Amino acid sequence: MGFVYDRSVCFPRGFTASGVAAGIKTNGVDDLGLIFAESEATVAAVFTLNRFQAAPIALSKRNIASSHSRAKAVLVNSGCANSLTGKRGLKSAEKMASETARQLHIGKNRVLVASTGVIGRQLPIENITEGIPALINSLSEEGDHLFSQSIMTTDKFPKQVAMEFELSRKGSFRIGGTAKGAGMIHPNMATMLCFLTTDADVDRKKLQEALSESTRESFNTITIDGDTSTNDTVFLLANGASGVKLRKPSELRTFSEGLTAVMKELATMIVRDGEGATRFVRLNVEYAYSYEDAVRVGRAIGTSPLVKTAIFGGDPNWGRVLSAVGNSYAKYDPSKVELRIGDVCVFKRNEPQRVDLTRLRDLFASKEIELTVRLNAGRESAQVFTCDLSYDYVKINGEYTT
Amino acid sequence: MGFVYDRSVCFPRGFTASGVAAGIKTNGVDDLGLIFAESEATVAAVFTLNRFQAAPIALSKRNIASSHSRAKAVLVNSGCANSLTGKRGLKSAEKMASETARQLHIGKNRVLVASTGVIGRQLPIENITEGIPALINSLSEEGDHLFSQSIMTTDKFPKQVAMEFELSRKGSFRIGGTAKGAGMIHPNMATMLCFLTTDADVDRKKLQEALSESTRESFNTITIDGDTSTNDTVFLLANGASGVKLRKPSELRTFSEGLTAVMKELATMIVRDGEGATRFVRLNVEYAYSYEDAVRVGRAIGTSPLVKTAIFGGDPNWGRVLSAVGNSYAKYDPSKVELRIGDVCVFKRNEPQRVDLTRLRDLFASKEIELTVRLNAGRESAQVFTCDLSYDYVKINGEYTT
Repeated sequence: MGFVYDRSVCFPRGFTASGVAAGIKTNGVDDLGLIFAESEATVAAVFTLNRFQAAPIALSKRNIASSHSRAKAVLVNSGCANSLTGKRGLKSAEKMASETARQLHIGKNRVLVASTGVIGRQLPIENITEGIPALINSLSEEGDHLFSQSIMTTDKFPKQVAMEFELSRKGSFRIGGTAKGAGMIHPNMATMLCFLTTDADVDRKKLQEALSESTRESFNTITIDGDTSTNDTVFLLANGASGVKLRKPSELRTFSEGLTAVMKELATMIVRDGEGATRFVRLNVEYAYSYEDAVRVGRAIGTSPLVKTAIFGGDPNWGRVLSAVGNSYAKYDPSKVELRIGDVCVFKRNEPQRVDLTRLRDLFASKEIELTVRLNAGRESAQVFTCDLSYDYVKINGEYTT
Repeated sequence: MGFVYDRSVCFPRGFTASGVAAGIKTNGVDDLGLIFAESEATVAAVFTLNRFQAAPIALSKRNIASSHSRAKAVLVNSGCANSLTGKRGLKSAEKMASETARQLHIGKNRVLVASTGVIGRQLPIENITEGIPALINSLSEEGDHLFSQSIMTTDKFPKQVAMEFELSRKGSFRIGGTAKGAGMIHPNMATMLCFLTTDADVDRKKLQEALSESTRESFNTITIDGDTSTNDTVFLLANGASGVKLRKPSELRTFSEGLTAVMKELATMIVRDGEGATRFVRLNVEYAYSYEDAVRVGRAIGTSPLVKTAIFGGDPNWGRVLSAVGNSYAKYDPSKVELRIGDVCVFKRNEPQRVDLTRLRDLFASKEIELTVRLNAGRESAQVFTCDLSYDYVKINGEYTT
């Protein structure tokens, strides 16, 4: 069975979700979402590495610690990041959790919260508390689509994916997820929120290991503009509702690989919906000395404004790609580096290669571009995904107003 | 005496210069320039740290080594970077030097070369060799303006500055310089070429120390798009024609400070003429643990596309500035960080400050914006200069075609 694209966090059994317009955004669109686990779930989380961490992150970390990684609900708002908002911001995040807990009749440390939107502005907390009853009343197993919409900011489409996995003799378990991204996407994440659920039964430690590993291989290999936000959050809730207990290494590997596949698919959707993106770029870095080196070189290319504008312009200016490689701190010998655009080798053994420029232009005019750098310094490789830098990126971010 | 803005490399005595259209660029503008030192000069140089270094850099390094840092002439072309051009590219760079040397009747290792333009394309060497006679014939003490024009690529204006310095009892010496920049400007330089001359007499080692130090405090604190090119070069020629020998530490300090002032002025001009730039941004990072930390934080802000597009949009979205600070690897406690826009403190002790939003908007609508980050982690400070990211940056770089 492959990916299911019209479902997300309610595809695994035992989860409901909802989304409403609470008036945090002024244009009347959905801006508040809730995920509810009928039985208490084990939770794993990954947060931004930005030194300034938003209030909802501080609160969620505290709740995860005090509940020993147990959660029943996740409340998320868009339209305001509740970041750099000081003590009042932390009180607002606490209120989000306590009000949800009160109305759901659960412990307040069983609620996780996340926010996305403009930084440095106080949350309109009344809108949120007033929106919670409607959110709870509309919780349903088909509510994941509304939830996915409620977390969007500059996203052009909701990002959802789900998948079912069969274990011989044990039965099947499911993983589903949704994300929001669009701008500020970079390795180590960026105002990127991602919510994942599974009905498998996985213990806390293994669940966290799987999530950390899958994050490294998915969200941490995409880059849109090199910025990492104060709010990035990934939550994974496992409620065990499938009855399938994953304990053996082989079973855990199946889970981990499945989770990576789901998260990679969401990461790819985020890049395709990068702010102003017109082209999707797959960067293969091969024969690197280490995996870290491969990712580092991929990121150096993927964050270069000169490379990204050339790609927007459909201009096969490959010298800029190698110049970006030359700016990365990876271990390699420049005279051994090879560069391919699609299947055309343009540079090898210190020499530009004879190429058909028309063919290159055609490859660069495509909606999907593949660049391959062979460092010939070792055996490791990585893929990094990025997009071009267009007029619309400037427009969206010059006008996304405070 | 202050800066002289209509003179550059011929303001110091004993230097002539020229510029011609050699047909490297197809639009008929000047693209080949020459600086000539009547008496042999001592030379200091700083080159890009990009791992891929262009052919003219390889050749110039070799000539500086074999001549023990002596030079008579500098030949520069725009329109083609002669970078990633393999053996044929190196032969072209050699031909630039040997042909200049032959026609000037000087040793061929007394010629330095530099190139700027598209990477990965072979130099039309015949255009250059055919252009050299006219260049030599037109050498003059007023030729520095033509030289400054001949090295331009996407620059909108030539960058020139000169200054005279008085030493009591010893007389005066002069420093003059010209630069080209516009795109690809970043710490550790970027297709940025800078040519400096002085008629002071300074020994080789002290000359190099002064140039390295001044580069660190000028070109390495500006950033336009975070990219560093394969061709960045700064040459400084000292011919001693003033008869003023600088040997005492206090005299050398006067020289070094003068050189830094001249180079900072050129660096500032490069930022003001950043590709598509509409606003000039002065980033002050204060009370840092180290100078390196201060520069690192300044660069993190100055390379953030989200900060730069907000500035283009005139949007006082200061949360993005702190988010960029939070992404830098400097040593500080986030709860002690303060941010000021102009003279308005917007964030302090973990709390957003009450501010007059209209006043903030006015400050952001200005052509010159000043942001001050106080890390409160030590005693060091640095200034970093940058510009905004506009539609025109995307246009210029999406269409600057191969």
